Amino acid sequence: MTSEHNAPLANLRAVLKRQGLEGFLVPKSDEHLGEFVPKSADRLAFCSGFTGSAGLAVILLDRAAIFSDGRYTLQLEAETDPALWERLHITETPPEAWLKTEAAGKKIGYDPWLISADGLQKFDGIDLVPVERNPVDEIWTDRPAPPLAQVFAHELDYAGEEAAIKRERLAKTLREAGQDAAILTDPASLAWLFNLRGADVEFTPVALGFAILNDDSSATIFMAPEKVSGAMREFLGNHVTVAARAELAPALSRLAGKTVRYDPASMPVWLKTSLTAAGAKIAEAADPVSLPRAQKNATEQSGARIAHSRDAVAMVRFLAWFSKAAPLGAETEISAAEKLLEFRRLGSNFREESFPAISGAGEHGAIIHYRATAESNRAINPNEVYLIDSGGQYLEGTTDITRTIWTGPDPAPAEVKRHVTAVLAGYIALARIVFPEGIAGSHLDVLARQALWQDGLDYDHGTGHGVGSYLSVHEGPAGISRAAKPVPLKPGMILSNEPGFYLPGAYGIRLENLQLVQPADFGEQKRKFLRFETLTQVPFDRALIDPLLLTPDASNWLNAYHAALRQKLEPLLHSVDVAETPIRLSGATAPI
Amino acid sequence: MTSEHNAPLANLRAVLKRQGLEGFLVPKSDEHLGEFVPKSADRLAFCSGFTGSAGLAVILLDRAAIFSDGRYTLQLEAETDPALWERLHITETPPEAWLKTEAAGKKIGYDPWLISADGLQKFDGIDLVPVERNPVDEIWTDRPAPPLAQVFAHELDYAGEEAAIKRERLAKTLREAGQDAAILTDPASLAWLFNLRGADVEFTPVALGFAILNDDSSATIFMAPEKVSGAMREFLGNHVTVAARAELAPALSRLAGKTVRYDPASMPVWLKTSLTAAGAKIAEAADPVSLPRAQKNATEQSGARIAHSRDAVAMVRFLAWFSKAAPLGAETEISAAEKLLEFRRLGSNFREESFPAISGAGEHGAIIHYRATAESNRAINPNEVYLIDSGGQYLEGTTDITRTIWTGPDPAPAEVKRHVTAVLAGYIALARIVFPEGIAGSHLDVLARQALWQDGLDYDHGTGHGVGSYLSVHEGPAGISRAAKPVPLKPGMILSNEPGFYLPGAYGIRLENLQLVQPADFGEQKRKFLRFETLTQVPFDRALIDPLLLTPDASNWLNAYHAALRQKLEPLLHSVDVAETPIRLSGATAPI
Repeated sequence: MTSEHNAPLANLRAVLKRQGLEGFLVPKSDEHLGEFVPKSADRLAFCSGFTGSAGLAVILLDRAAIFSDGRYTLQLEAETDPALWERLHITETPPEAWLKTEAAGKKIGYDPWLISADGLQKFDGIDLVPVERNPVDEIWTDRPAPPLAQVFAHELDYAGEEAAIKRERLAKTLREAGQDAAILTDPASLAWLFNLRGADVEFTPVALGFAILNDDSSATIFMAPEKVSGAMREFLGNHVTVAARAELAPALSRLAGKTVRYDPASMPVWLKTSLTAAGAKIAEAADPVSLPRAQKNATEQSGARIAHSRDAVAMVRFLAWFSKAAPLGAETEISAAEKLLEFRRLGSNFREESFPAISGAGEHGAIIHYRATAESNRAINPNEVYLIDSGGQYLEGTTDITRTIWTGPDPAPAEVKRHVTAVLAGYIALARIVFPEGIAGSHLDVLARQALWQDGLDYDHGTGHGVGSYLSVHEGPAGISRAAKPVPLKPGMILSNEPGFYLPGAYGIRLENLQLVQPADFGEQKRKFLRFETLTQVPFDRALIDPLLLTPDASNWLNAYHAALRQKLEPLLHSVDVAETPIRLSGATAPI
Repeated sequence: MTSEHNAPLANLRAVLKRQGLEGFLVPKSDEHLGEFVPKSADRLAFCSGFTGSAGLAVILLDRAAIFSDGRYTLQLEAETDPALWERLHITETPPEAWLKTEAAGKKIGYDPWLISADGLQKFDGIDLVPVERNPVDEIWTDRPAPPLAQVFAHELDYAGEEAAIKRERLAKTLREAGQDAAILTDPASLAWLFNLRGADVEFTPVALGFAILNDDSSATIFMAPEKVSGAMREFLGNHVTVAARAELAPALSRLAGKTVRYDPASMPVWLKTSLTAAGAKIAEAADPVSLPRAQKNATEQSGARIAHSRDAVAMVRFLAWFSKAAPLGAETEISAAEKLLEFRRLGSNFREESFPAISGAGEHGAIIHYRATAESNRAINPNEVYLIDSGGQYLEGTTDITRTIWTGPDPAPAEVKRHVTAVLAGYIALARIVFPEGIAGSHLDVLARQALWQDGLDYDHGTGHGVGSYLSVHEGPAGISRAAKPVPLKPGMILSNEPGFYLPGAYGIRLENLQLVQPADFGEQKRKFLRFETLTQVPFDRALIDPLLLTPDASNWLNAYHAALRQKLEPLLHSVDVAETPIRLSGATAPI
């Protein structure tokens, strides 16, 4: 690793010196500042060798530091050379604090395409200098080509609303706010607004690109024109122009004198600087697609139910297979995840996983974002806890489910059952809550934790995230966590409910279903209430539940959930499976 | 009323014209921007006749509007003249929105002593002009003299920490933040910091004044010097100077070049403007007293328990008296509240009520901030719901309690019991929560509401507020409501827990105890947890509880609470009461 990655650092430093810089920031992000980055934009991996999904390098002329979070402590150490890199925990030693003490007064370059306006503010007090061209790009000779997957239409049968109507709906929002245009930088926003999908990155069916939406509902998409066929251009319609990525800067200049909506939290600061320099007035506001995209329409809601039925069939077949295979000890974390993917592939309109499956046996389950690799992969043993967190992309919708399973054949220890039941109690409390309009996810988070807290336990992650419709498995703006933005939950939003508990070195527990926000009907009254419809239809492992630790209300909820899903799934299973899985399902859904 | 209050408006308009103003804002607040305003500063009452505790008048040359909230809709209509005033709901028609449409382009004066910097920002886009002298003061010929009550020491036996140590503790905070001095405008902050109390306003034992605390722990108090005796000056010590209120402005000028801490949320904007004009640098941050004051020390915690024992004796005697008196129908809302005050007065170190008692029978209970007046006062009838919300100021601490009682003699209707039990279930869920450090009140609010929400019910007020130590009954910075500031709960904080339910025209339910944040002990572990110690020791009315609607955990909590308070109170009651009250207590605390 040393020799391979020594060259980039030395070459980069030569460029920095030439440009009069004393350091340079290399974040993980690409210019869309999103979750999944194509290899062609992974400058952090090129410079450092580190391939984790979050991180930042600070490269000075005589030393270099790389920051990531607790999920990647081990990976960071394995993938980077300690002779070249100081490896640091990003929340314990924030890069901005490190820069203040370790690089005081130094002139540090950054690429304004790779950081948001809000993100840049964190570095206040440091002499940061934007660069015109990223110096990494100058030295990256064997850089992979950018992805050029064909863009395809997300048909009305799945999208539920014509793109032209969506554009007009958003244009009205712009007009009402006195904004002449809005910039879009999130490929998932382009996907939703224009009813298009792509395959530029793994796990999320988006096409990388930018867009400008005008207040007359016309729009320009900026992406490699070869990705957009003639048929696709026809589908996009007369009011949508496709232009090359290089046309974006000139197009921004033409916004001189206009009021342009820009999201300082999610969009590159380059756009803000350029628009201001061009004489446009910036209206800081959230990506206008964010909220409408989160509120799924009736077609998307039906699609979500269909996708979840198919996903449940795959999961139930997997669980049936697992219950026979696991006690034999012949399977591994990777083989089990592959088996599940195999079952998913049998479902119609399944396209790919919605994220890399987390398949963790025993102590691996306690690593919250564990990913089994050739090196870490281990056998799934009898009599241990196994955690599987996975999801699918179906044309009808996106799924995400976690189950925690006892491999058997012996009964699970009482302590494990106590922990699982506390997590389940939290899950159920959140699943059955009814709440008035105006409530945000940060208000509900406590429900999923209170049973654990009562025993002095907790988990170090949020309780729920938004999920897209055949789109990103992590979607804003709403979420369920103590730190979630104060975005009220609205009908049509799909959110995960996934409390957990992790005993390092021993086992991890997480129980996750997706749920859809629905109006709750209390007849005639002024105040409007909401509730969750559970989309995921897969049994929880009864071998890990201690019924004595659940309230009667919680037990009733669980029994009703299991009874309902059995009714739904049995006919579907009979059509794909001869007999065994349905019989196992009936045992798995018996009342506790 | 018309003739009486016509004069102020006409006179005020003459002054405004002379000063070239086209309108003027008259808020309820005085220059401390606090909860209780002395009559000498109640310009709103003088101009309009309206005596509610919150409101704002906008007086234009040809019309005038007065804004208050839902609590005061009726009172506003009763106390103001419709020929002179448009009476508006402050959240439905915010004054700033009204000004934009009804007084577009007009030059509106305001008194910069009566609005905070944050408060002023809401009026962005309106041509607001600060006045040097409040025009109301020019025309207010029969203005009452400002209160001049003697300041007295809050002795160490009650305060638990020497004022000099408090000053040094805060001075250290200032030094660490690079602040040379802090301005204090909240009389409760002066009271805490200097261990002084006063009697300038009702219900809160504060002395009106301002202060400057320097980073060397020296300080100057600005208040009428005649309020501070020689002995009191000695108690304050050599490092604390008392200066006349008129000395404040010159003292601010002397802060030129210094960095001065100023709270834009709670302090008059006049201070910010003056400090900036004098060449001081403003460091915007919360009142430095706010958080330390909220975290009661061991002495204050013991004091709170003592105050609550005395208050419980008074309440239990009141409840015993009430259970005999109420079914006879001979008492009124006012006579009952007076009887309770009579019992409270028998307790040692009782000084006054901590706020005007809310004594509401039947439909009056549904008016959240009801106050029985000579006009509204009504008999408490048999077989109805009675709500009593009251509190006391004891030298050892401040109390605040609400009970909802069935007057009998017949059993309460099932629906009333269902509503009360849902409120009680919420109360108990919040009372018994255990939570990790870092959690704020906004995260816990849902616990008190979930049982009501499940039936499509809710209440339109926060669940809990901070409470001072022989100080303000409403104290920041923490609170329990969906909109509460994100201030993590800390050991030593005292907060109310008071869910309710209101059926307009029929009855109101509210159940309130005070609770003290305490560390929760789970033995050796990294994460620290907190829990609530219930301070209030008074039974809930068993006649209104349906045990079948409580979970076993909630019933157990209630039975344990009742058993523990009986043990605590019985010896105290035997010493003041011959026999009857203790016997009634034993029935009132029997298991449900």
